[in-house]
Amino acid sequence: MTQDEAPKGAQATRRRFLSAAAVGGVAATLGPARAADLGAPGPGDPANLPPNVPDWSKYLGDGVAARPYGKPSKHEAHVVKRDVEWLTASRESSVNFTPLHELDGIITPNGLCFERHHGGIAEIDPADHRLMINGLVDKPLLFTMDDIKRFPRVNRLYFLECAANSGMEWRGAQLNGCQFTHGMVHCVMYTGVPLKLILEEAGLKPGASWIMAEGADSSGMNRSVPLPKALDDCLVAFRMNGEALRPEQGYPLRLVVPGWEGNMWVKWLRRIEVGDAPWMTREETSKYTDLLADGSSRRFTFVMDAKSVITNPSPQAPLKARGQNVLSGLAWSGRGSIRRVDVSLDGGRNWREARIDGPVLPMALTRFYADLDWQGEELMLQSRCVDDTGYVQPTKAELRAVRGVNSIYHNNGVQTWLVRSDGSCENVEVS
Amino acid sequence: MTQDEAPKGAQATRRRFLSAAAVGGVAATLGPARAADLGAPGPGDPANLPPNVPDWSKYLGDGVAARPYGKPSKHEAHVVKRDVEWLTASRESSVNFTPLHELDGIITPNGLCFERHHGGIAEIDPADHRLMINGLVDKPLLFTMDDIKRFPRVNRLYFLECAANSGMEWRGAQLNGCQFTHGMVHCVMYTGVPLKLILEEAGLKPGASWIMAEGADSSGMNRSVPLPKALDDCLVAFRMNGEALRPEQGYPLRLVVPGWEGNMWVKWLRRIEVGDAPWMTREETSKYTDLLADGSSRRFTFVMDAKSVITNPSPQAPLKARGQNVLSGLAWSGRGSIRRVDVSLDGGRNWREARIDGPVLPMALTRFYADLDWQGEELMLQSRCVDDTGYVQPTKAELRAVRGVNSIYHNNGVQTWLVRSDGSCENVEVS
Repeated sequence: MTQDEAPKGAQATRRRFLSAAAVGGVAATLGPARAADLGAPGPGDPANLPPNVPDWSKYLGDGVAARPYGKPSKHEAHVVKRDVEWLTASRESSVNFTPLHELDGIITPNGLCFERHHGGIAEIDPADHRLMINGLVDKPLLFTMDDIKRFPRVNRLYFLECAANSGMEWRGAQLNGCQFTHGMVHCVMYTGVPLKLILEEAGLKPGASWIMAEGADSSGMNRSVPLPKALDDCLVAFRMNGEALRPEQGYPLRLVVPGWEGNMWVKWLRRIEVGDAPWMTREETSKYTDLLADGSSRRFTFVMDAKSVITNPSPQAPLKARGQNVLSGLAWSGRGSIRRVDVSLDGGRNWREARIDGPVLPMALTRFYADLDWQGEELMLQSRCVDDTGYVQPTKAELRAVRGVNSIYHNNGVQTWLVRSDGSCENVEVS
Repeated sequence: MTQDEAPKGAQATRRRFLSAAAVGGVAATLGPARAADLGAPGPGDPANLPPNVPDWSKYLGDGVAARPYGKPSKHEAHVVKRDVEWLTASRESSVNFTPLHELDGIITPNGLCFERHHGGIAEIDPADHRLMINGLVDKPLLFTMDDIKRFPRVNRLYFLECAANSGMEWRGAQLNGCQFTHGMVHCVMYTGVPLKLILEEAGLKPGASWIMAEGADSSGMNRSVPLPKALDDCLVAFRMNGEALRPEQGYPLRLVVPGWEGNMWVKWLRRIEVGDAPWMTREETSKYTDLLADGSSRRFTFVMDAKSVITNPSPQAPLKARGQNVLSGLAWSGRGSIRRVDVSLDGGRNWREARIDGPVLPMALTRFYADLDWQGEELMLQSRCVDDTGYVQPTKAELRAVRGVNSIYHNNGVQTWLVRSDGSCENVEVS
């Protein structure tokens, strides 16, 4: 019998366990739904076990050599990054989204980190990759990957959020699921060399005040970064969550610009030029600027302001049962650490403080929870965070009053999920 | 031209870059070794780019839909868990090892976490999985996975170390590489329910003083845990680094026993029985006890004492160049946090304090670094850690004086790597 065959004997199993199964507020549970009707095996036969024992308890599984690089269970095949076909004209210049509703804690596993490319995923051979430092420097430099790994390095857990995360929400509730409304964010531990050390090695000339970071992908993606930020906490990173960067995350080298919009974290980093003014590249002029109500564009909105979202329940993760449930979500701020998160069950009329769990680190995702005793009533769930500068996450109405609805980027407004009596959830606006 | 074709025109590239490449203590570097001899393309032709531009800068890469669950670059195919064929009689009851020398920071990516199985990898369908609580409880309980996820949960970064890690070192330097001498350890962020909440739900009867945790794998792996530990910080965990546990790590449910030997972290957790004495299971009597010099066995050595190892350089990661290099390693303690790490370049005669980097969390891996200016001299590298109880990691000689050499488990002695003048490294004993 394989594990996929139809079960037999499940009725006996159910009777056996029903008397035992009961947990406060949680429905009575049943024994394994698949069980073998084993007939009368002889002694010593591996089948000589009680009914209701599943195959995985009876037969040897794969040995250690089977999976030199592990992967998720086949039962988790639905936990994947997803794109939205109509969002962009091509898949090479597009985005896919982290399944936030399927994750917990503050670390995004490398296989599920959202991606945004402008010319597809560059597949770089690290032996042939170089990082050039040029411009207003005393000594232009060219580094191999081995060279870079000889500088002192640090490890830092940072969120990366695309400036366009929640961008569709400017004009109303659009996408049904936090994966799509808020999934352009991830948080991993980066290992890299402080950019300061590399710039100091080259020596900065008088007048140096900006850098330009350029990628080796086919779009040659480039962005300008003010020198004070470059010398403060930027990293030239080559690892994420311990292992090498993934190709879609810039392997073998990317810029890390903590707390600032993801587009600046140039992937496949091949060059850093030092200059005395921003370069006014495509990605900081015609794109990644904020079109205001009067038709003018605000440029250089670098910092990702404080933001939060309830990941569970949410449209892709409805409530399954009444009684005790876990409400959970994420908060983050590009200006520092999260100080407090509040949640509302009634669309912002009443608030209670959420429980923040796990490490609270600056410019990293922060996990929060609230106990939810749900008896089938309709809920309007919201979360609202405060960072350690005292900044309070605004409502969408407050944002629109200042910025209009022309924008694509930097929407950090409070998100609302309607929970219906059947447990299903929907992305809605509070009127 | 594909990226795998033989290069042409590399000589021109080299001449162009040689004048620019120089970095203090780091050898001059060359331009990309693969470059196209492009002839005379017409305007607008994507080939109309300078020579030395690699293909990944000229042609679109894969789009976002290509990798809904990401995986490492093909150039990282050597970064895998590895087993040692002669170490065990079968692959189903065996171990493979984390490639510590290829990692950095303190998080082990899920694909590279070492494994130890006693009956192979159980492939469990979570819909059919149950956790039973029975024994000295007021109310025996049976939980589905959905039930468990309705309890309040926490996220904690913990190391898991097999008691047998470094076991071959009892009788002298045996295995050439920290992957094999120290690679039965990993560190991930677990999401789970405090076991205390589940035991309180069942209600403990008078006399309850131990629990027995049992796996649903074909070995029915089980271990006894003292009740105070179970009520203190043990978790019933269902996620690692944000996503579901991997099958080889106990999907869908495992016990987390912070700081204690890995064998107790029962995977594929199906039952917790409460009792008034240890069960004296196979894995805590004939195995996972410490055979002393006099032939008696010490049992219940639960805590993994403070330990450290230099991961780079090491036998699998030799020094590649003279001058500035990064020395790096890991330290951990089952009794709390790492307070200090020292490194020696001369086999323990002189010590200097290492730089500890990143979050320092109790019962989690801690990363340390030291700058190494190497001019080709022979080195005898060692690291030695101190935890916040004041405990100092012992030498192997100190361990053997107390414990003899019959043991397999709980070897936390100082490790020595000999670095030769060609940069190669070897596992050696200091006489």
